[in-house]
Amino acid sequence: MKRWDVLVEVSPRSEIADPAGTTVERALRALGFSGVTGVRIGKAIRLEVAAADEADARTVTEQMCERLLANPVIEDARIELRAAVAPESSW
Amino acid sequence: MKRWDVLVEVSPRSEIADPAGTTVERALRALGFSGVTGVRIGKAIRLEVAAADEADARTVTEQMCERLLANPVIEDARIELRAAVAPESSW
Repeated sequence: MKRWDVLVEVSPRSEIADPAGTTVERALRALGFSGVTGVRIGKAIRLEVAAADEADARTVTEQMCERLLANPVIEDARIELRAAVAPESSW
Repeated sequence: MKRWDVLVEVSPRSEIADPAGTTVERALRALGFSGVTGVRIGKAIRLEVAAADEADARTVTEQMCERLLANPVIEDARIELRAAVAPESSW
């Protein structure tokens, strides 16, 4: 079993209102960042998982998204995987 | 001015406690995902920014992190940039 570094990005679906994102966008504009648009705020979940290969690691992560990490009615989940170079590594 | 798709990942610094991550890790184990370790939960902030080139887009995004998006005492910010292929694009 190899270790895999995983990033799960859980973001509000595009058709769902994101009041936190709207508020942050307004605040950035008020601070003078006039070129900013489309602010959306989601969760960035980092974890390590033990799996035989990358496909297996992805399958396990998808199951974790379905069971706990994301609510598919209002959220999209995007998964990034990378072989862990050392215990507790990050990238 | 080109448009740039930006992802800012704001995560709790490694020496800072992350009770939400600890709780999610315990819940994943309880659901049978025994190979999971090191769960940390941060924010995934997506936005578009107008800038002349990639270096300029990165500079503006770093300023937004310093001014509003991240608290450097307890959080790390990681920036990913990509040229926007179309208005409101995502990747």
